[in-house]
This record gives sequence, structure tokens and C-alpha cells, in this order.
Amino acid sequence: MLLHLDSSANRSDESVTRRLSRLFADRWQAVHGTAGYRYRDLAVDPVPPIDTAYCRLGRRSERQGVVPLTLVGTLIESIAEANAWALTRPLIDEVVSSRTILIGAPMYNFSLPAALKAWIDRITFPGAFRDGVLSDTEVVVISSRGGAYGPGARREGWDYEFPYLRAYFTNYGVPDDNLRFISAELALADLIPRFADQRPSAARSLAAACDEVVSCVAAAEHAGAKR
Amino acid sequence: MLLHLDSSANRSDESVTRRLSRLFADRWQAVHGTAGYRYRDLAVDPVPPIDTAYCRLGRRSERQGVVPLTLVGTLIESIAEANAWALTRPLIDEVVSSRTILIGAPMYNFSLPAALKAWIDRITFPGAFRDGVLSDTEVVVISSRGGAYGPGARREGWDYEFPYLRAYFTNYGVPDDNLRFISAELALADLIPRFADQRPSAARSLAAACDEVVSCVAAAEHAGAKR
Repeated sequence: MLLHLDSSANRSDESVTRRLSRLFADRWQAVHGTAGYRYRDLAVDPVPPIDTAYCRLGRRSERQGVVPLTLVGTLIESIAEANAWALTRPLIDEVVSSRTILIGAPMYNFSLPAALKAWIDRITFPGAFRDGVLSDTEVVVISSRGGAYGPGARREGWDYEFPYLRAYFTNYGVPDDNLRFISAELALADLIPRFADQRPSAARSLAAACDEVVSCVAAAEHAGAKR
Repeated sequence: MLLHLDSSANRSDESVTRRLSRLFADRWQAVHGTAGYRYRDLAVDPVPPIDTAYCRLGRRSERQGVVPLTLVGTLIESIAEANAWALTRPLIDEVVSSRTILIGAPMYNFSLPAALKAWIDRITFPGAFRDGVLSDTEVVVISSRGGAYGPGARREGWDYEFPYLRAYFTNYGVPDDNLRFISAELALADLIPRFADQRPSAARSLAAACDEVVSCVAAAEHAGAKR
């Protein structure tokens, strides 16, 4: 099962992140077929921001030592809480039942898009990822960014996206070896005249990202399907 | 001029972040009056997520070497772009015209709330903060978090909120000395029985945060008002 998320605000073909995540999804479907493929566009169908009812329901679960997800329904005390849970539970189930989570996550202002954080804030309900339910999950993050953030770059250390997502997913039990981060850097070079001198570097970065995407799908294929 | 933002999803009195930002705002108004006070609740009135039109308009500005904000209107090519700009420009003006920006920003999943990132993604339009327009701006970030993230804590290094916000604002010209970060840690201790042994530490952290808020307002008062 592949869960493919896009979070780029730019829904046009200009989005390098969308093109790369699409490449991954197409390759994956060529191997595994379409039955196990699920797509969620967080820009088109935004995950509603969590609210007071969500927080109250989560606290109530925590006060009881964090109840299993199957029992959260018994804690609900209002229509607002029922609504909050109805929005939340399917998203958690979608994550837990996926072998691979593919996240298109362009860097916005040195971090992830708000649309992706809204998804994270909602799925991270108390107890959602207990008992090692993500211990066989793979997470592939694909990101284009306007600048360069790798070792030696002027902006080295300004990437608050990949280190954050690594911390987040490992905290919830995804093994570090199951995390892949693929980036195409200098993505503005093609679009903006004053960055024209960066175009050869940008093209190399994009080509390398494409290669990584393809080899990443192949590796997932050899590892076999869990679900 | 004080711009007070809240971004806690929990709009009830349970929100420690909201109580602390309210304390700051009340103290500030006691000194400066209410005329220069502006409040924006990002949970009640969410900033709409940026979209394709926003991205296209921003790129068009960048392709022309980043035009001044007063000329962005001349670049608009569609109703969607006009709408995007109408949503964006007032938020930028609000930031630029404020002497102090007070941000209530609870830590959610080791980072900032999605609602706050949506605001950041929108105000960071190309050229919004050029020419040192934020060089006299003060930013006060107030945050409660469930755990402890200070030096020596088990979660030291897991704070992707304060370092990120520091990087973001300094990148756009807010002097490092004008940034204040105030946190109340272990905020779940009062609410959850299994954290009961942390309650004395939590109470000390909250008391220290209150003291910091009060002294922070006093310092701002002595510094005088820019605008």
C-alpha cells in the first residue's frame, strides 16, 4: 500500500515537487498496480486545523493513560468532539495501513508547508502510533527548494524541514533506515533570470533527484510488500 | 503598535499559551492604552493557505527582480491572483507597521502550529520585508509545551520551533537582540495523572514564564515606541 501525499501550494506543472512525487507514484504503480495506491492532495483537500474539541478529546484520552484508538469513541462528550474524531481516525488508519508513505513537501520558508503540518497535527492524536505500528513503514520525502542547503552551501543549517521530519517520524517508531529524503535544490534557477548562473547546478540536482526516486522505488520493490 | 497573534488550537482557558499571551497584552495595554493594540486569532480566523495564484504572482515579481509591494498590483493577471494579493497585502502591512509582534505559539509535535505556519507562508511574499523594514521590530514568542526541551532535558535538541522562528525572523532582518522566546514547560503535568510528579517543576516553569512576560513588557516600555 502506497499513500501518496502532495502538499505543494502550487498545483501547476511548475511544481518540481509534484513532478517528482508523480514520478515515484507512476513507477510504483507500474510495478505494483493501482489497487494499493492512495492519493491525498493536501492543497486541494486541506486537512481541517485541529480545534478545541480535538485537544479536549486527546487530553481526556491521556488522562486515562492513553486509551486505544478503538476506545476513543467511548470518550466523546459532544458533537464537536465526534466531528473532530470523525475527521481524525480515517487519516490515522490510512497512515497505519500503508507500507510506504510518499510525501511531496516543498520547502517553504525553511520549513514544511502549512498544509503538511496541518496533516501532522491531526494524525498525531494520543496513542495513534503506539505498539510499533510504524516499525515496518517506509517514509519517502520529496522536496524541491529554491536554494541549496547541503554541506558547504551558504544555507547549510537552514533546513528546518528534513531534520524535523526525521525527528517526527523516528519519534513515532519509523526506523531511521526506513526514511528517505530526496531533494531537488536551486529550483528557482529556471524561473528567475538573476539565478541563471545556477541553472547547470539546478539541472544536476534535479537529475540526481530523479535517479534517486527511481532507485528508491526499485529498492522498495525488492524489499517486498508488507501489506 | 502591538500585533498580538494567537495560534493555539485550544481556544479554552486550558491553553497556557493563550493565558500568557493575554497577560502580555493586558500589561502592554495598561501602559500604552488600547489604540495601538491589534489582535489576530489564527485559530478563529485562519489565514487561507497559499495557492497556485499566490505562487505565480510571487514568481512573476521575482522574475522582474522583485518589485516593490506597491507595484505588485500591476503584475496581477487573473482574478485568482487579485484575490491572493488582497488576502496577503494587509497581513504584510500589519507586520511592518507593528513595533512589537507578540506570537502565542504552543509547541505541537516539536514544531509550530499549522495555523501559524499558514500565516508565515502568506506574509513571506517576495520583497515583503526588504530594505530593513523589520530592523526595529521586536518579536516576542510565547509557547507552552507538554515536555521540557531546555539544556539537560531528555528532549534537548527536539525543539524545532524556537530555533526555526529565530532563523526565520533574523533572515528577514529582525535583529537577534529584538527576539524574545518565553516558554512554560511540562504544561501537561497539571492535566494528566501520570505526569503528577512533574507538577512542581511545571509550576516553577509557569511562574518563571509569567515573570519573563512582565519584565518583557517593562523592557519594551523603557525602550519607547517607534511607531
